[in-house]
Amino acid sequence: MTTELPKTLVNGKPGDTLSVYDRGTAYGHGVFETVRVRNGCPELWRRHLQRLLEGCSRLAIQLPVQFESALNKDIAELCGQGVDGVIKIIITAGSGGRGYLAPQEMQCQRVVSLFPMPAYPDLHSCEGVQIRTCDYRLAANSRLAGIKHLNRLDQVMARAEWQDSAIAEGIVLDAVGNVIEGTMSNLFAVKNGELLTPSLDECGVRGVMRSFVLDTADAMGIKTREVSLTLDEFKSAQELFLTNSVIGVWPVKQWDAQHYVRGAVTQRLQQKVEALCHDAAGDRQ
Amino acid sequence: MTTELPKTLVNGKPGDTLSVYDRGTAYGHGVFETVRVRNGCPELWRRHLQRLLEGCSRLAIQLPVQFESALNKDIAELCGQGVDGVIKIIITAGSGGRGYLAPQEMQCQRVVSLFPMPAYPDLHSCEGVQIRTCDYRLAANSRLAGIKHLNRLDQVMARAEWQDSAIAEGIVLDAVGNVIEGTMSNLFAVKNGELLTPSLDECGVRGVMRSFVLDTADAMGIKTREVSLTLDEFKSAQELFLTNSVIGVWPVKQWDAQHYVRGAVTQRLQQKVEALCHDAAGDRQ
Repeated sequence: MTTELPKTLVNGKPGDTLSVYDRGTAYGHGVFETVRVRNGCPELWRRHLQRLLEGCSRLAIQLPVQFESALNKDIAELCGQGVDGVIKIIITAGSGGRGYLAPQEMQCQRVVSLFPMPAYPDLHSCEGVQIRTCDYRLAANSRLAGIKHLNRLDQVMARAEWQDSAIAEGIVLDAVGNVIEGTMSNLFAVKNGELLTPSLDECGVRGVMRSFVLDTADAMGIKTREVSLTLDEFKSAQELFLTNSVIGVWPVKQWDAQHYVRGAVTQRLQQKVEALCHDAAGDRQ
Repeated sequence: MTTELPKTLVNGKPGDTLSVYDRGTAYGHGVFETVRVRNGCPELWRRHLQRLLEGCSRLAIQLPVQFESALNKDIAELCGQGVDGVIKIIITAGSGGRGYLAPQEMQCQRVVSLFPMPAYPDLHSCEGVQIRTCDYRLAANSRLAGIKHLNRLDQVMARAEWQDSAIAEGIVLDAVGNVIEGTMSNLFAVKNGELLTPSLDECGVRGVMRSFVLDTADAMGIKTREVSLTLDEFKSAQELFLTNSVIGVWPVKQWDAQHYVRGAVTQRLQQKVEALCHDAAGDRQ
């Protein structure tokens, strides 16, 4: 099956190209989502859809009336055979308009692809991963913070800092030295019984799995807080883990020179999230 | 002729699409140039090429050995009949690679399009234009400042602030309130005999026409300086003008409520730049 992936629908039809005049390519005027698919069902779909719609709204991308049902149809078509994998959705503002001014009548483009699951080692989930601190810093911009838009040079630049495959992720700080996120994940710390994660009001991507973990912890009675903390403050946590929609929860076993063990809170959350995700995958209707 | 434009070459062949998996679309991992073509010749070509190469280098985009000659061939093919217009070049990092990490062997994509000249009123050049101040602020990021990369949501967001076609441009400030640039142009001020333009070390696009105007003024014995000045400091200038490769030099006649006349320094520079550009258009070999 993997040999024939990715499969892609562009505006509902098989295809794998976009116009070179598209505002997605020209300016990054668009958003994307990366959704874990298990047994043909997209996990945490309502949350992904909500972030996608919020991103389009923030970027003034006009969606057609039947957008949501068209998207559901695309996903059903690609995932109809009980497949496992990753659905990537790209929505762009489409072609047209002179320069940066968007056309009054926008023809947004909808790209939905099914990719195989990345081949992450199983040990990442149970034993944890090694991470590093990136030199690249994120600039503060509340107007674009949180959404998963197509301007991702920050992540490209930060990820280009290392080639060593033993290092699973790099952590990026903001200009004043507060910890923000990983290049492809959000970061959590357990410190004195509290679950902490960086505030993303000024930069960073508000991960769907991040929100799900916060809500899950809340429901489990674990105290949660969004924080602005320095590298040293984060590194002095008792437990650390990363999240995203594809990896789920990865404990951190080493950050730069510092070592950690997978703690009790991380394990409880990992098990709970895994169990709930299986259920939530059915939550599409 | 305009009815059949734009004409586009993708990697040297007629076409108008890019892969949906291209890192240009996915992350904005690429750069672009917008070049004025007069009588079949691209103006200020060496400067455009230099910025393009610098941008690719900053973004670690690997170019093939024959890149420059292939680009020249594309432009010659599109502009072979003594046409006037605008050449837009997009270079992307190509497809491949898992997530943000670029593939070790990059297949960069080369898109070259010929567009008709935008229909700007002649009055913009002689009488000047009306401009406004944007609410949107540019974040400081020295790693991406200056180059013309494909992450242009800043410009899209700022340009979306007005629809009134009487307003030709919007001026964008940085987070601390210093004037940086227009959404599609650079800004110059003449103040006490000096030619001032915002420093672009932390944000903004280092326009090819901006550099050319600075060098030209220098050669004419006009004192030039790159500055960090507030809105009020800029607005209190005696003369103001905008530059980019397509518009050349546009005097500013009104900025928000404040009025200006096209001054002597602006006129001298406008005439000199116009004359030199005609000559420089031949500077391709």
